[in-house]
Amino acid sequence: MRRLLLVSAVALIAAAPPEKPKTPSEIVAEAPASAWRDISADDLLVMELRNGARVVIQLAPQFAPVHVANIRALAKGGWWSGAAIYRVQDNYVVQWGNNESTRPLPAGVVAKPPAEYHRALKGLAVRPLGSPDAYAPSAGFAGGWPIGYDPKAGTANLTHCYGYVGVGRDLSPDTGTGGELYAVIGHAPRHLDRNIAVVGRVIEGIDRLSPLQRGTEALGFIKEESQHVPISSVRLASEIPAAERPAFQFMNTQSATFAAYLKGRANRKDDFFIRPAGGVDLCNVNVPVRRKP
Amino acid sequence: MRRLLLVSAVALIAAAPPEKPKTPSEIVAEAPASAWRDISADDLLVMELRNGARVVIQLAPQFAPVHVANIRALAKGGWWSGAAIYRVQDNYVVQWGNNESTRPLPAGVVAKPPAEYHRALKGLAVRPLGSPDAYAPSAGFAGGWPIGYDPKAGTANLTHCYGYVGVGRDLSPDTGTGGELYAVIGHAPRHLDRNIAVVGRVIEGIDRLSPLQRGTEALGFIKEESQHVPISSVRLASEIPAAERPAFQFMNTQSATFAAYLKGRANRKDDFFIRPAGGVDLCNVNVPVRRKP
Repeated sequence: MRRLLLVSAVALIAAAPPEKPKTPSEIVAEAPASAWRDISADDLLVMELRNGARVVIQLAPQFAPVHVANIRALAKGGWWSGAAIYRVQDNYVVQWGNNESTRPLPAGVVAKPPAEYHRALKGLAVRPLGSPDAYAPSAGFAGGWPIGYDPKAGTANLTHCYGYVGVGRDLSPDTGTGGELYAVIGHAPRHLDRNIAVVGRVIEGIDRLSPLQRGTEALGFIKEESQHVPISSVRLASEIPAAERPAFQFMNTQSATFAAYLKGRANRKDDFFIRPAGGVDLCNVNVPVRRKP
Repeated sequence: MRRLLLVSAVALIAAAPPEKPKTPSEIVAEAPASAWRDISADDLLVMELRNGARVVIQLAPQFAPVHVANIRALAKGGWWSGAAIYRVQDNYVVQWGNNESTRPLPAGVVAKPPAEYHRALKGLAVRPLGSPDAYAPSAGFAGGWPIGYDPKAGTANLTHCYGYVGVGRDLSPDTGTGGELYAVIGHAPRHLDRNIAVVGRVIEGIDRLSPLQRGTEALGFIKEESQHVPISSVRLASEIPAAERPAFQFMNTQSATFAAYLKGRANRKDDFFIRPAGGVDLCNVNVPVRRKP
């Protein structure tokens, strides 16, 4: 079989001759240590599934502080014991949780959090995307996260990109506690932006969620409880003994390295490409994240 | 467990009271027969996998006539006998094919097709998207397909949305024969637009491709040939006896019904939504397709 060169964002490509522009992968591989930021162990949620998969979620307390505090309290309070993935909808979401109607919330969990669907733009150092966006007046990056923002209204919101994690809720004004979460496994459902609290992103193991068997009921719910995917544990990295604790870094989106990476993502010039787009969708940029070296 | 109302494009929602705007699903469900167009049996490629899955692809001869003619000739010529899915890359593509380096192409297959990466805008009736696009000067729909287009250059191209099918190729000027194909299973890799021949879309069974186990090699290639997913057959619907032949329709994108659907997709007002976006990404519109009633 021909091994076709349909390259992807994550492909590691051999170093090109110096006259060629660096590929996005090369820019990330050669990024200086100063371009990276450690992720706090309190911002890492480690979910182990009974099938052996491990999923690591980076939390975004700067965008949804009450929901993130809830998620931490839920983890510490043993909420996820007995929980399972009960919904897998193609080109949409994987969703997991526990029974909020019968199970008491652990101490410290706010039962009715505020609608943390956006925050003040003020206080954020923004790197503009430089391409138009269908869902927000402007799009860009702040603190390592993709955002939509509205300079006139002075608001900014996390966006529903692939792998991003939101809080399941019922009809408004319910905002969800964080006791049921979902991760995006398809084309970014950006119409959910500013309608749901986005609380983070899967930074390792999304490829263990996305291949799960799709549920056959409406909205991808899994019909038989015996077919649910049981969760073994959900812990903050800070609860894990230091020696076993995973550690990650994300790229500082204000760094010159990220600026070069963003430019490269919008103007793909790998040998494969004959027409660089000259633009890029917010959810196709993928802020680089890595295991801490 | 709460059954959260995180609704999707494909959800069938009970009819709302008359004063409420219709949801996109309601608009599709109530579409008059005149809003639908039959898909020719020569434009339907039916792929059966040995695991029992059936995948139906609608071909787009108006955008890539030589490649589509090749794909028809490959199917009729038994090309796919012994072929398999050998690549599954998370948030990117599933790819399948046969060994072009050792296997002769069937009669009638053009070995070096032209670069059908875009076509003339002239001759297309275009429904503008009405939202900005990061990859093309304008975006919209023509003949039932999502397109990027450039009124100045007078060109239009099919876009790499979820479920869309393209022709694997090596480095340019190779354009691929159609003997290796891929389908998008992640966020739309629109940077491939105008760099690859897009030849159609999966209209049934993408949910049988997207959950396949991700390949562990670089670019998602599956390491062991024994782990490849064998293809039993690939036939045009026109090769299948009429009584067993699947028949589909797509929504005419010039119809008033599609205009209402598009508006609804950009302004979600289901009870779940508190802030309609007022815009929509081209690849979140999903041109309605159905089994012919």
